[in-house]
Amino acid sequence: MSKTWRRYCTACIVVGVALPVAAQQITTPLAIAKQGSFFIGGRDVYSETLRPSASPFFTTTGTVTIDQVYVRYQVPVGANGTAITLIHGCCLTGKTWETTPDGRIGWDEYFVRKGHAVYVIDQVSRGRSAANTAVINGVRLGKTPSDQLPPINLAGHESAWTGFRFGPEYSKAYPNTQFPLEAIAEFWKQMVPDWTGSLPTPNPTLPALSELAIQLGGTVLIGHSQSGIYPFGAAALSTRGIAGIVSIEPTACPEAKADMTPYTKIPILVLWGDYVDQSPAWAPRLAACKAFAEALAKAGGKIDSVVLPEIGVRGNSHMLMQDRNNLEVADWLLVWIDQNIEGRTRK
Amino acid sequence: MSKTWRRYCTACIVVGVALPVAAQQITTPLAIAKQGSFFIGGRDVYSETLRPSASPFFTTTGTVTIDQVYVRYQVPVGANGTAITLIHGCCLTGKTWETTPDGRIGWDEYFVRKGHAVYVIDQVSRGRSAANTAVINGVRLGKTPSDQLPPINLAGHESAWTGFRFGPEYSKAYPNTQFPLEAIAEFWKQMVPDWTGSLPTPNPTLPALSELAIQLGGTVLIGHSQSGIYPFGAAALSTRGIAGIVSIEPTACPEAKADMTPYTKIPILVLWGDYVDQSPAWAPRLAACKAFAEALAKAGGKIDSVVLPEIGVRGNSHMLMQDRNNLEVADWLLVWIDQNIEGRTRK
Repeated sequence: MSKTWRRYCTACIVVGVALPVAAQQITTPLAIAKQGSFFIGGRDVYSETLRPSASPFFTTTGTVTIDQVYVRYQVPVGANGTAITLIHGCCLTGKTWETTPDGRIGWDEYFVRKGHAVYVIDQVSRGRSAANTAVINGVRLGKTPSDQLPPINLAGHESAWTGFRFGPEYSKAYPNTQFPLEAIAEFWKQMVPDWTGSLPTPNPTLPALSELAIQLGGTVLIGHSQSGIYPFGAAALSTRGIAGIVSIEPTACPEAKADMTPYTKIPILVLWGDYVDQSPAWAPRLAACKAFAEALAKAGGKIDSVVLPEIGVRGNSHMLMQDRNNLEVADWLLVWIDQNIEGRTRK
Repeated sequence: MSKTWRRYCTACIVVGVALPVAAQQITTPLAIAKQGSFFIGGRDVYSETLRPSASPFFTTTGTVTIDQVYVRYQVPVGANGTAITLIHGCCLTGKTWETTPDGRIGWDEYFVRKGHAVYVIDQVSRGRSAANTAVINGVRLGKTPSDQLPPINLAGHESAWTGFRFGPEYSKAYPNTQFPLEAIAEFWKQMVPDWTGSLPTPNPTLPALSELAIQLGGTVLIGHSQSGIYPFGAAALSTRGIAGIVSIEPTACPEAKADMTPYTKIPILVLWGDYVDQSPAWAPRLAACKAFAEALAKAGGKIDSVVLPEIGVRGNSHMLMQDRNNLEVADWLLVWIDQNIEGRTRK
């Protein structure tokens, strides 16, 4: 624990000076060496209900490609850090990491400005990664029983308000919340249907993340909420190319009884915002992740479990990458990456 | 017609010298002044079937926001052209304009490199713009009749092959096709379900485009295929902020009998690839658009209707922004924008 505490202390100091540095760099032009987008994974499936009825030029039968993962990336001029892969959570897309609801810079660009190549994905069946809707037409046409419809989850504003810990109940804010609630309407626009319950096991996003890490030859996988466990899932498939795991407010960690072998090979951070212990949803998840962290440490793993208010950073919501102090948290995270993955101290 | 022909001739000359210039500029770093993403539009709806069943922390009832349009943008350092808005077609997302299936630079970045701020959207209910899936759960739960399910269209590879004019029949290529067919598997991954048939009238993407144009204070709206008519639809709502319309291989143009008033106020280009006249799907659309162009010209409008092989550029598919000569076509288009919208000649 004392080793971990030393890491916290380093972080505390950085937090104090981070914001002016961050603000200073954001108005300068950004020099991009390379950018673009591509897909990882995907498989072809044949269907007889691609559409409810044929058009003159599109038939109802045919082949479509599903289970691929959309990846958008930017590599800065003079990149000098490990590549970072950003994985969004439930009911959201890669937009999570972009411009905040109130128009400030997102982590996607900030990490690029800090010298890292950044890869932002849309999970399988979300955003620009296609979902398979053929069965819906099958039910519409009476060819398929309605209980075969995919279970799809939308998160309502009312549930998300407390679930994302903007406040203790809907429309009431925590007095010191860091979330820009004046722009909450813009945040609601980020939310999309979640098809995860209709996907095969393992979720095809996991092998895709593994493949991406191998292709990149080294990346920090940063998952959030629903996807907080995905980097662990990818590492269980193969640790190749996974330089580090950052799990932000995961809905689950691996079980404390899990095979720890893959996780002992990778530096790991599990990071939490404020009010976690007061939340019936999140307190048990924090407890379970702490149990995992203890078990992993005993097995020789290198894991930090950090609750931001315990290191003096208060008021963070579940969407801490969008909170007012998002760059302060990002700076803290970059120091953790420097020290634990890159073995260096950033000036 | 002679005025139009002079424009073609200028273009012909540019086509001859364009590619070396384009290739030269792509390896240099790109200086970005500002980038990010935001939404336009959106409305709140209440539902009792947000999910098939409640979870401990998410209820089945509540409010979600739909009908918003996701917009991602980049503004280059030294921007000196009109902002360009790129609108994708059926069964696709904003990915259309990004890195090509075979890994070359897309129009999104190319136009930025040429001095234009570029805005790329995902249509309503597509990509990062949320669809409303609540009714699907309603049917699954037996609360809603199955004929209320949204009609959703997937384009199968087999139909899309001829629909996008990669060749005369599935898996056969036009001998001189410009589409990078060796990477066709990557193109299939771009295709997503199309919910347009479930949307209200007018499609909420149209007022969102109008609002975007007004916010930007001047933009060229570039639509493609399904969205080729959207810039016209936005102009019919308001011509404010619409500096120009480029309709690439539209599935429809306004009718020749339509009220031409809004369209007389805006420079317009309708652009087509190769083999259009040989396609049962596309030949009638070209003819209808030509009739519209004639009617608009008679009403005093400024419209060019250009079929690329008629100006010496051959082999282009429906996805001409991804074809091997995509930057050649982009350069030609930039000259058209310069001459017809910005009233200047680019060196």
